[in-house]
Amino acid sequence: MKKIAILGSTGSIGTQTLEIVRSNPDLQVVALAAGTNVEKMEEQIREFRPLAACMWTEEAAADLRVRVADLDVKIWSGMEGLLETAVIPDSQILVTAIVGMIGIRPTIAAIEAGKDIALANKETLVTAGHIIMPLARKKNVAILPVDSEHSAVFQSLNGELAGRELQHHVIYEGKQIEKILLTASGGPFRGRTRQQLEGIRPEDALKHPNWNMGRKVTIDSSTLVNKGLEVMEAKWLFGVELDRIQVVVHPQSIVHSAVQFADGAIIAQLGVPDMKLPIQYALFYPDRRPMEGRRVDLFALGQLTFEAPDTDTFPGLALAYRAARAGGSMPTVYNAANEKAVQLFLENRIPYLGIAELIEMAMEHHKVTAAPGLEDILEAERETYEYIMMQEGLSNK
Amino acid sequence: MKKIAILGSTGSIGTQTLEIVRSNPDLQVVALAAGTNVEKMEEQIREFRPLAACMWTEEAAADLRVRVADLDVKIWSGMEGLLETAVIPDSQILVTAIVGMIGIRPTIAAIEAGKDIALANKETLVTAGHIIMPLARKKNVAILPVDSEHSAVFQSLNGELAGRELQHHVIYEGKQIEKILLTASGGPFRGRTRQQLEGIRPEDALKHPNWNMGRKVTIDSSTLVNKGLEVMEAKWLFGVELDRIQVVVHPQSIVHSAVQFADGAIIAQLGVPDMKLPIQYALFYPDRRPMEGRRVDLFALGQLTFEAPDTDTFPGLALAYRAARAGGSMPTVYNAANEKAVQLFLENRIPYLGIAELIEMAMEHHKVTAAPGLEDILEAERETYEYIMMQEGLSNK
Repeated sequence: MKKIAILGSTGSIGTQTLEIVRSNPDLQVVALAAGTNVEKMEEQIREFRPLAACMWTEEAAADLRVRVADLDVKIWSGMEGLLETAVIPDSQILVTAIVGMIGIRPTIAAIEAGKDIALANKETLVTAGHIIMPLARKKNVAILPVDSEHSAVFQSLNGELAGRELQHHVIYEGKQIEKILLTASGGPFRGRTRQQLEGIRPEDALKHPNWNMGRKVTIDSSTLVNKGLEVMEAKWLFGVELDRIQVVVHPQSIVHSAVQFADGAIIAQLGVPDMKLPIQYALFYPDRRPMEGRRVDLFALGQLTFEAPDTDTFPGLALAYRAARAGGSMPTVYNAANEKAVQLFLENRIPYLGIAELIEMAMEHHKVTAAPGLEDILEAERETYEYIMMQEGLSNK
Repeated sequence: MKKIAILGSTGSIGTQTLEIVRSNPDLQVVALAAGTNVEKMEEQIREFRPLAACMWTEEAAADLRVRVADLDVKIWSGMEGLLETAVIPDSQILVTAIVGMIGIRPTIAAIEAGKDIALANKETLVTAGHIIMPLARKKNVAILPVDSEHSAVFQSLNGELAGRELQHHVIYEGKQIEKILLTASGGPFRGRTRQQLEGIRPEDALKHPNWNMGRKVTIDSSTLVNKGLEVMEAKWLFGVELDRIQVVVHPQSIVHSAVQFADGAIIAQLGVPDMKLPIQYALFYPDRRPMEGRRVDLFALGQLTFEAPDTDTFPGLALAYRAARAGGSMPTVYNAANEKAVQLFLENRIPYLGIAELIEMAMEHHKVTAAPGLEDILEAERETYEYIMMQEGLSNK
């Protein structure tokens, strides 16, 4: 019996994780945490019977307490509740499917308590990779990627290098990795010029060709900022230099990513675009469990195509490499500036191309703190939010 | 220091194996065997200083003895010499790069002596897989594929299933393998109709688009018989049912093969067409050594294409499945009939389409011996040779 706790259980990754629990009777959910969706949480509690559940707001928690008064389940709230959820005794693995910086502290707490991490929170490694990875190494804890691209790299590395010996405690030194080939669909605007992107409205950008995702990540996918964040994560996860991570635009989203080794061999993972596979792989690693569902049909596809990303039209990707090279607090600025800029774009307050412009401005304005602590990271985020809102305010005058 | 012996050292795989020895100082050649190329063998002995060498004919051996009289090297000949080479004390791995049935007895002897096998002799598994694989299992010996397709499958399986635990002694039970996707270039006649193949001459068929190989295997590649033999080998190597092995025509020869697992994930190995990679991988498995050389450039390639094989135009592939399903001595008949038929075609004595016709006739004429011993296999081969020559004699009357 493998016991898991899930942060963000009512979101897309969270609910898909629970689908996997449903079809694998040797998985047991011991704790769930979500934002404010009390109704869905009640359903999940009634079906999966965790020992505890956490809502982000105290109101939601109070509501939930009344709803599940007939059950023997502890209801927590806020950051304290998230931390309790993360370290609940008995759980072996924490799924961090929560969005935003609030995922970092619970992740650190879980690692310190010796829990493996099924990582689906982008901010964790982007902003605090220098804290997370050494801690995981020290605590002999596995950081198991849930993102389809990182899972593909992870699957391609399976059996290679140190992973072979270390099994459940995967730490790659990157010595024999010549290149990580991180694939990107290229988003809905692939092949367009900058000029053609000038009039793009939120509803145009919200149509992703291959994946069904939330609004924010769909926009990030169209600007390639999403890929930029993944480059930063890959750097930490697999311990490779930035120059060894190459983004490959692959519109069919079938090759989920690949690794080129020092002998020239490339190992790639292919599959239909479905998050359940990487989630399940993370939960059972190093085992691979059967799973029903659609399969790749190479004959029906006919071809897989590859092209270099257009970083002139999509400067968000080049900015990510710049932010990662600057290091320290700069990736936090990149991420926070993008977050706010996307929000402004979705509210029709800035043009589409303004997203990358605001990220660049915020990065140029920022003075890097090397090896920032958690407080420094949160401070850099706050400052960036303020800076972006100030810019937007100025431009509206 | 890893000590190796090579059967077929003057051929294409043999010389490429020696190139790898040249660039890896911790490999040592302890014995070499070849057919009749005494000059090349003398060179190899002077460079690699094996303890012993074997020539197939006694004349060649006598000539070699005179040539290397100044060196302390034993010179053997014939099958006895091959067997001595195969089991020479100190060697840990035998590279079987010899062509034809004569490779089988030395391979069995080496397995019995506990040597790992880097397998490049097709006949071994095609005709005697039912003898070789259980013996290797019993002796805890690894059968390491050298063929690029099987190496690709092997690399894709690395870290998965039983291979993880067994490391150097790879035995896959096939339980979690949903499909092996065995790629084929499709050869020079891909896309043509049967009618268009009627007038094909040997010089047309000897032009392979991607690989430089010997004459026989180039013809086999054009008829898809080569792929048929590989399907049979894959069945034995990876312990999967025939129906789980799917041939995928992939003209660029970049994806060398792939495995689809029970969760739908496909792991594939890609690379430029170069035999040195799979040879080196077999020699150092489970380690992967750096290797200089060309790399796959996905941007330059632009696309990888896939299509179903045309088994109407190329019946050699369908016949292979039929032979493998019949089992017993039938795969030997398939292989032997093809060997003779290709020889007749290269001598302009039968038309191109006659190759598959003769294979089919020989198979229909043959009565299967179930679980044949080595003598039965050799007998089936002799009978098939005779049958083919008789057919050819009849058709010329």
